[in-house]
Amino acid sequence: VQQKKQYTAAEYISGILNKDRIMLSKAITVIESSRPEDAETGQEILQACLQLQKQSRRIGISGAPGAGKSTFINTFGKILLDAEKSVAVLAVDPSSTISKGSILGDKTRMETIVNHPGCFVRPTASSNALGGVARHTRETMLLCEAFGFDYILIETVGVGQSETMVKNMTDLFVLLLLPNSGDELQGIKRGIMEMADIVIINKSDKGNESAAKTAAAQVNLALHLYAATEKGWTIPVLNISSTEKTGFDTLLDKTEAYFLAMENSGFLKHNRQEQQLRWFDEEFVLMLKDAIQRDAAIIKIKQELESRINSMQISPSGAAKILAEKILKR
Amino acid sequence: VQQKKQYTAAEYISGILNKDRIMLSKAITVIESSRPEDAETGQEILQACLQLQKQSRRIGISGAPGAGKSTFINTFGKILLDAEKSVAVLAVDPSSTISKGSILGDKTRMETIVNHPGCFVRPTASSNALGGVARHTRETMLLCEAFGFDYILIETVGVGQSETMVKNMTDLFVLLLLPNSGDELQGIKRGIMEMADIVIINKSDKGNESAAKTAAAQVNLALHLYAATEKGWTIPVLNISSTEKTGFDTLLDKTEAYFLAMENSGFLKHNRQEQQLRWFDEEFVLMLKDAIQRDAAIIKIKQELESRINSMQISPSGAAKILAEKILKR
Repeated sequence: VQQKKQYTAAEYISGILNKDRIMLSKAITVIESSRPEDAETGQEILQACLQLQKQSRRIGISGAPGAGKSTFINTFGKILLDAEKSVAVLAVDPSSTISKGSILGDKTRMETIVNHPGCFVRPTASSNALGGVARHTRETMLLCEAFGFDYILIETVGVGQSETMVKNMTDLFVLLLLPNSGDELQGIKRGIMEMADIVIINKSDKGNESAAKTAAAQVNLALHLYAATEKGWTIPVLNISSTEKTGFDTLLDKTEAYFLAMENSGFLKHNRQEQQLRWFDEEFVLMLKDAIQRDAAIIKIKQELESRINSMQISPSGAAKILAEKILKR
Repeated sequence: VQQKKQYTAAEYISGILNKDRIMLSKAITVIESSRPEDAETGQEILQACLQLQKQSRRIGISGAPGAGKSTFINTFGKILLDAEKSVAVLAVDPSSTISKGSILGDKTRMETIVNHPGCFVRPTASSNALGGVARHTRETMLLCEAFGFDYILIETVGVGQSETMVKNMTDLFVLLLLPNSGDELQGIKRGIMEMADIVIINKSDKGNESAAKTAAAQVNLALHLYAATEKGWTIPVLNISSTEKTGFDTLLDKTEAYFLAMENSGFLKHNRQEQQLRWFDEEFVLMLKDAIQRDAAIIKIKQELESRINSMQISPSGAAKILAEKILKR
């Protein structure tokens, strides 16, 4: 087996600064690596990128399976690229914990942009834990910012915790819905709706105008049941057809208006600072967990508690309490 | 303000053993409480219930919003109740992290069973973290088992991490799908499909037979693309109409067959033991996190690191590494 070429942190960093996509890809692989020898290099790259960071627009894109996220990103990405903007596309998709990947790969739906010289598409990092996926995506995002992409689009699937995570690492959160009947809309949870900065009724295709308009009106109604957002932004509901490329002018206008308003109000800066502190909190817990898994003395106590759990002498949470106290009182 | 009556752990435990639903409800509230004075009582109740535990059948029920989970549970629950089985219905729904609760409450869709004397319905515990919701649901489940319910149905929404959590606390995992077109099915992630022990095409209503049969055939095809499950169970795909109450005979047969086979193979016992150990791991991390948040010395180091993060002197993950090392080296 041939040994892969190893680079130093400085080489990766200079590659990123020189807009070398292959070095960016390799640096992301180092960041995603679980090998201990990569950890230090990864931290050095990250630290440098943090200081070199430019102001990319971070946009989260969410929607249930079938909402047409990949097709939307393909069309939206192409429009940004045509306007001479560079675009990175990342994905947080923790739903397939067992076998990874979807039945049909998403890359085929992004064929217009995937080979464009201004575009960089990075598939989901493989990782067992949702926390792990978010961790890598957040770090990958910083590398892409140092590289200088104008837009970073982060795709997430589902209606669960992954949406919260993507919300927590982006500036603007876009929710894709379908022109379904009122009955379907009842299933949308209030929390998800309130996370959105822009709601898109995707697949508002020709011949489907009536259902698309009804859906938009219903979502608007639902949104107006809530108080105005804290940041003083009225959430627009847009009819868009990603396949027919309609409705994107309004989307671009609303995106500009959003970033301008949030820049002026100071929200963008404040929000990123809050996100950094939350990242610190989450990362710290993950690191503590990792370190504990490598500590021989702790492993021994843990094994004893496990056999007491197995014989029903102690509840899992009772055992957890004992172990937590032991670690903190050393 | 009138002081609420406080009970001792022994009173709660004896209430649960005497099948007093009000005491069960109150005990669950103690378990869910974040007040320090409730923590010890909660642990005592939990410990007692662990030892008193009877063998309830734990069934997880999942599906996207709009799949008809509540209506399904209402009909399935009624059929079990009519067969003189007692049923507890719990829910893990972490999707609404901001405002909690869905636009339309689910209780109205469970009206047939919610007031039945053999049934106990407990809405989602309010909690900010997904981990917190799962934590309480798991403990609530143990209390319901000590009470002696024959079936515990745990509802979860979405396609994200919450499904994994419910999978990890149940014996049998049921996935509800809709009779959608093939195009929609492509959106279903392989991991979710592989989690299911039984797949139900819900809303297989009269007049919709053709779409319902096509959907079942497609899911069957998709399932056969994978290797057989480790536990040697062939996943059945059933057409069911929850509103017309059709298809439930087959569901009951398959449920019986599943529990019989899994009992005989030793899977049920082995699976529960593994679940307990995973619970221990997760709970331990949560407790460590809680304890750290109350430690003055750690809080001080943390605040210093936070101001260095804010001035971009250090990356959030770099700071996390320093803090984790400080705690473990004390």
